[in-house]
Amino acid sequence: MQKVNIGIDLGGTKILAVATDRNGVVLGRAKGKTDISGGISGIAEQMRERAGRALENAQLSWADVEAVGMAVPTSVDPRTGEALHAPNLGWKNEPVLPLFRKVFACQVFLENDVNCGTLAEARIGIAAGLPSVAGFFVGTGLGGGLILDGRLRRGERGSAGEFGHQIVRTNGRRCGCGHRGCLEAYCSKAGFSRYLDKQINGRGRKSILTGMLGNDFSALKSSVLGKAYRAGDAVVREALDKGAFALGAGVANVVNICAPDCVVLGGGVIEALGSELLPIIRKSLDAHLFALSPKDVRLEISKLGDDAVPLGAAILAQAEGAV
Amino acid sequence: MQKVNIGIDLGGTKILAVATDRNGVVLGRAKGKTDISGGISGIAEQMRERAGRALENAQLSWADVEAVGMAVPTSVDPRTGEALHAPNLGWKNEPVLPLFRKVFACQVFLENDVNCGTLAEARIGIAAGLPSVAGFFVGTGLGGGLILDGRLRRGERGSAGEFGHQIVRTNGRRCGCGHRGCLEAYCSKAGFSRYLDKQINGRGRKSILTGMLGNDFSALKSSVLGKAYRAGDAVVREALDKGAFALGAGVANVVNICAPDCVVLGGGVIEALGSELLPIIRKSLDAHLFALSPKDVRLEISKLGDDAVPLGAAILAQAEGAV
Repeated sequence: MQKVNIGIDLGGTKILAVATDRNGVVLGRAKGKTDISGGISGIAEQMRERAGRALENAQLSWADVEAVGMAVPTSVDPRTGEALHAPNLGWKNEPVLPLFRKVFACQVFLENDVNCGTLAEARIGIAAGLPSVAGFFVGTGLGGGLILDGRLRRGERGSAGEFGHQIVRTNGRRCGCGHRGCLEAYCSKAGFSRYLDKQINGRGRKSILTGMLGNDFSALKSSVLGKAYRAGDAVVREALDKGAFALGAGVANVVNICAPDCVVLGGGVIEALGSELLPIIRKSLDAHLFALSPKDVRLEISKLGDDAVPLGAAILAQAEGAV
Repeated sequence: MQKVNIGIDLGGTKILAVATDRNGVVLGRAKGKTDISGGISGIAEQMRERAGRALENAQLSWADVEAVGMAVPTSVDPRTGEALHAPNLGWKNEPVLPLFRKVFACQVFLENDVNCGTLAEARIGIAAGLPSVAGFFVGTGLGGGLILDGRLRRGERGSAGEFGHQIVRTNGRRCGCGHRGCLEAYCSKAGFSRYLDKQINGRGRKSILTGMLGNDFSALKSSVLGKAYRAGDAVVREALDKGAFALGAGVANVVNICAPDCVVLGGGVIEALGSELLPIIRKSLDAHLFALSPKDVRLEISKLGDDAVPLGAAILAQAEGAV
């Protein structure tokens, strides 16, 4: 019988598991909230439970599983498999792999979540078949992933692909990381929150957000941003249009530096506002390209949605040696 | 008898040829001015003459030559070998390779000059033995080269490695390429010239440059910048210190995106002012790193100097298949 792989997206709020065949087709799926109160072993049990339900939904069992890939919201050291820093999970330099291997009793691979999402889009998603792909995922932060000549670019301690922390404006806006001028400070929910707080609470500008959320913009949802943007709210439009312009410059930088065959945009903000923001991102990208013409640079929106991350983890688990 | 390789640095003002053994040791060298009045065939003859003299100086002949590598000041299309745009040589989309192969009557390879310089530093220079190396060469412009996992990253139409045209300040200074905020607008002789012209001729600020050069800063030499900087000239210091700060941010961007094992700085400005500017570049780099600690990121000054470019061309000629 054909073996299957498990891919798990371990996030700070939810855990999504998929069971896939060797072509990346999803056979079963299961989802549930993350509870970090039980520490690492608690999380391991929750992942095993989700994976077990995904198998059940596909009428499969653990005996059918070849390997398990886990996508985590942190850099992973490619040499040690250590998860370096995941504040949402309470992890810092956590050697989680030995415990996970014990709980799952099979081959387990760990990788950064955005790296997994980019890998899935490059292999079976919108950029399928292209050797070099850069992924920009705009959510709470702005995560990046880089596939060059078919291989995930990891770098020392998993440090490559940090597109959100490239400097697009020296001495510019303060980022959550403490630096000034990072792309993430302009184009992420965290960046939008700070900007909106400053404009609305700080400068007293009017916005329909006040009626929707009160004065606390710290847990801004992409759907709320989408509503306010489409309603024509001036402050929200300004924040997001500036973010899209900065993102276009950041995409151009990655193109001018690495020349990927395709750039894929994903994440909650793009899912909620892709059609509105894409023309602005594209225009800024084209205006900042150096050696290539706009027609030579592909910019696409993610095709796999929420499945991209767990699918990438499953692909990685299947072919760790080749990645 | 052991075969040798020829490496030629074809610049807009001079042509430098070296004859090397298979380990990259320079056996002979010859240099002379570039005369573009005779077109491509005139340049081919000048290159052949320099290469011939380099061989003579090594007591070798053309019969000893295995291959010839040429470094050119333009992007080179890796598929066609076409030189895309070299204004200093009067070339635009020039299919020079067939003519060069005919004139040299042996294997000839063409590559961008900064790519060659970076390759030489990565193989036999300051970063010898490291698989992934980024080179920033600060001269009239700011050129870049990127070696990842031992291979030169070329990209579609040779477009990768354009570090000078990454945007470090959206809506910032106008660059020679027409964009706003490119690193090259802040950190290159062309960028310094425009800044100094604006400050001194435009705003009437005092500078010792006026006594040295009059009011025309368009052909600024690195040695002149070095003298004025060391004499404590306030406007020159401001221009170069800002340039070094921007360069540090641009280096950090390449590190945060690609995670090379080492970044090499070279070019006339670095040769003239490396010891003064390196601490500023390093401080800005460290302040803009995201995932890695400063101690994990190597920043070095080029070791091979003027020989880096022709040596890289020779290395490339020798092992084109493996690069």
